[in-house]
Amino acid sequence: METAELKERPEAVPQTRLHNFSAGPGTLPEAVLLEVRDELPVYGSVGSSVMEISHRSPDYSAIEASARATLRKLLGLSEDWHILFLGGGASLQFHQTALNFLPAGGTADYIVTGTWAKKALKEAAFLGNARKAASSEDENFTYIPDPATWDLDPNAAYLHFTSNNTVYGTQFHQEPDVAVPLICDASSDFLSRHLDLDRYGLIYAGAQKNIGPAGVTVVLVKEDFLQQRNQPLPTMLDYGTHTAKLFNTPPVFPIYMVDKVLTWLDRLGGIDAIAQVNDDKAARLYGRIDRTDFYRGTAKVDSRSKMNVTFRLPTEALEAQFVAEAKENGLVALKGHRSVGGIRASIYNACPPEAVEALIAFMDAFEQKSG
Amino acid sequence: METAELKERPEAVPQTRLHNFSAGPGTLPEAVLLEVRDELPVYGSVGSSVMEISHRSPDYSAIEASARATLRKLLGLSEDWHILFLGGGASLQFHQTALNFLPAGGTADYIVTGTWAKKALKEAAFLGNARKAASSEDENFTYIPDPATWDLDPNAAYLHFTSNNTVYGTQFHQEPDVAVPLICDASSDFLSRHLDLDRYGLIYAGAQKNIGPAGVTVVLVKEDFLQQRNQPLPTMLDYGTHTAKLFNTPPVFPIYMVDKVLTWLDRLGGIDAIAQVNDDKAARLYGRIDRTDFYRGTAKVDSRSKMNVTFRLPTEALEAQFVAEAKENGLVALKGHRSVGGIRASIYNACPPEAVEALIAFMDAFEQKSG
Repeated sequence: METAELKERPEAVPQTRLHNFSAGPGTLPEAVLLEVRDELPVYGSVGSSVMEISHRSPDYSAIEASARATLRKLLGLSEDWHILFLGGGASLQFHQTALNFLPAGGTADYIVTGTWAKKALKEAAFLGNARKAASSEDENFTYIPDPATWDLDPNAAYLHFTSNNTVYGTQFHQEPDVAVPLICDASSDFLSRHLDLDRYGLIYAGAQKNIGPAGVTVVLVKEDFLQQRNQPLPTMLDYGTHTAKLFNTPPVFPIYMVDKVLTWLDRLGGIDAIAQVNDDKAARLYGRIDRTDFYRGTAKVDSRSKMNVTFRLPTEALEAQFVAEAKENGLVALKGHRSVGGIRASIYNACPPEAVEALIAFMDAFEQKSG
Repeated sequence: METAELKERPEAVPQTRLHNFSAGPGTLPEAVLLEVRDELPVYGSVGSSVMEISHRSPDYSAIEASARATLRKLLGLSEDWHILFLGGGASLQFHQTALNFLPAGGTADYIVTGTWAKKALKEAAFLGNARKAASSEDENFTYIPDPATWDLDPNAAYLHFTSNNTVYGTQFHQEPDVAVPLICDASSDFLSRHLDLDRYGLIYAGAQKNIGPAGVTVVLVKEDFLQQRNQPLPTMLDYGTHTAKLFNTPPVFPIYMVDKVLTWLDRLGGIDAIAQVNDDKAARLYGRIDRTDFYRGTAKVDSRSKMNVTFRLPTEALEAQFVAEAKENGLVALKGHRSVGGIRASIYNACPPEAVEALIAFMDAFEQKSG
C-alpha cells in the first residue's frame, strides 16, 4: 500500500521534484533541503528550531563561523577580507556601495551590461559623479563591451561591473583589467568559478541564485578598501558597522541555509570541481543550440553566460509551445525574461547535469517534431 | 526498536521542544514549523521548495497576497494602508523612516524609552533636527515617561516611539495622545493587541519576535502620510518604491513563514483572542513575582511589559543558579539582558500558557528551596 510504504520511509521524497531552471530564486541542492527538513521542528540539541534561538547564542554563532570558514576555504580568502551577511538584497547594495565608496568630488566608473548594472549606476549617480564607462545597451545588452572601447577615468575610486547578466545571458569571462579596485555585483555567478581576488575591493551577491535562498546578501570587503570609505554614514549603511560586530538581528534562516549550501559545495570538491561541472553543462547546452539552426542563442558567442542560457526558436508560437510542453515533461521555469523573449535556462551550481541532459533530450525531440 | 518506531511515524516530533523564552528571535508556533517541514523539499504542486520559485510567479504572489489579506483582517486595516515586507531589519527602519519623513528644516519628536529608541533617535539626528521629547534613561529605562512631562514640538512632522522595550521590560499601555502622526517601532509587541490605527502614519516591526523568523520587517504605511515623504530618495530606501510594486527579490522564506504565523493567529481567534491570552499570561507571571519578596520586577508597575517580563532575585549567584536549573527543567533562554541583569521571560504570542505555567511552577519550587 502506497501510504504505508511512505510511512516506513520518512526519508523518502514525498513529492516529485522537477527539473527547475528558475533564474532566481534558483534551484537548491536537494540534499540541503532534506537536511533542513530533518532539522525541523528541532535543531540539534537546542530544544527549538534554528529560527527560535538568539542571534547572540553560541549555536547561532557557530553557524555564522562555519559559513565564514567554508567561504574562506572555497575562495581562498585571506584575513584581509571581511565576510558579511546582510539583509536588504543586492538592490540595496547599489546604494550602499556608492554611499560608502564614491567620494565627494570624486568619480566612479560603471560598466553597463544589463538591467541590474543600469540600476547600480542610477543609484550611484543619485549620490555623486558616477560615470558610464561603457554600455552594451545599443544592442539590447547582448554582449560585454570590448575593454579597448571603455572610457575609463584613471582617478575613479572604483570600477563597478555586473559579472553575469541574468536577464540577457551574458557574462564577463575574466575580471576587468583596470588600475582601480573593482566593485562587483556577482549575484548570479558567485562561487561558480574562481575569482582573481587581488583586483577587487568589494564583491556582493544576493544569495538566491547560487548560494542559498532569498533574504541575505553576501558581501566581501577588503580591509584596506574599507578604510577608504566615506565617513560618517548612517549606521546600518556603513560597512564598518558590520565588519566591527554583529550589529543587529541577521536573517538567521537564510544564513543557516547558505552555510549548508557552502558545505555542500565544499564536499563536492569546491570551486575547481563546480567550475568544471559548470563548463561542461554550458558547453553541452550551447553545443545543442548551435548544432542546428532551429535554436538561436541571443547573446554574442564570446559573451555567453555559463549560468543563464538564453535562446530563441523560429517563432513566438513555437516558443510558447516549447515552454508548455517542457513543463509537461518536468522541465520548469524556462520562459525567457520579457525583455529578451524566448527561452532562458538558468543552470546555476545546484542545477544538476542530469537536468541539462533532460533539457537537451527535450530540445532534440521538440525540434524533430516541430523543425 | 526505537529507530523502527521513528521510521513508522514520520509525522512524530523527532526531538523534544523545550519551553523557549527567547527575547528574539523568539519562539514560533509548533504547528507552523511542522507545516514548513511537511512542505520540504516540495511545496504544493510547484515541483520544488518554496525557496526555489520566482518571486514573480503566481505561487509566490499568492503567499504575499494571503499574508496581506490576513494582516488586513487581523488589524482591520483599510485600503488606505500599504503593507510592505522589507529586508534589512528594523534597524534599517531607524534610518529609512527619518530619511523619508523628517523634512529639511523641520523637526521630529522621539520618546526615548530604551536601547532601540535611542538608536532610532541617533539615526534621525544624523539626518536632521530630531528632538528628544522625553526619556527614561535617568532611571535605566525602567518606566515609560509620563506624557504630561513630554517636551513636544507642535510642528513636528511625526512622533516616534517604541511600543515595547525588549531589554527593559516596559511597554506603552496606550498610544501617545499627540496631535502629530505617530511612527512606531512595534517590533516586540506587534499583533499582540489592538492598535488605534488613526493615530499612526507608519508602523514597523521586525518579524522575529511576534510574527515570524528573522529576515523580514513588516511596514504599514498610510497613503496620506506616504505622500508627505521627502523626494527624491535612493530607490530602495523610498517607501514609495515598494508601495508601487514588488521592486526586487523579497526575503521569500521569512515572508512565507509570516503568512503561516498570521494564519495561525487568525485561526486562534485573531487579536481579541491573543490579547486575552497575553493579558492572562502576563497577569499570572507578574502575580507570581509580586506574591513574595523573593522575586522583584525591574520595571515600574504601571510600565510593565506583557511581552518581556524582567525580574531579579536576591543575589546574582541565585540568578545564575535559577537560569541553570531552569534549563535543566526544560525552560530555556531566561537570562536577562546584561544591561538589566537577572531574569527575562519573553512571552510573545507563540509562547503557550503552558510554558508560563511551567515557569511559575519552577519559580515556586526554586523559591521554596532557596528562599
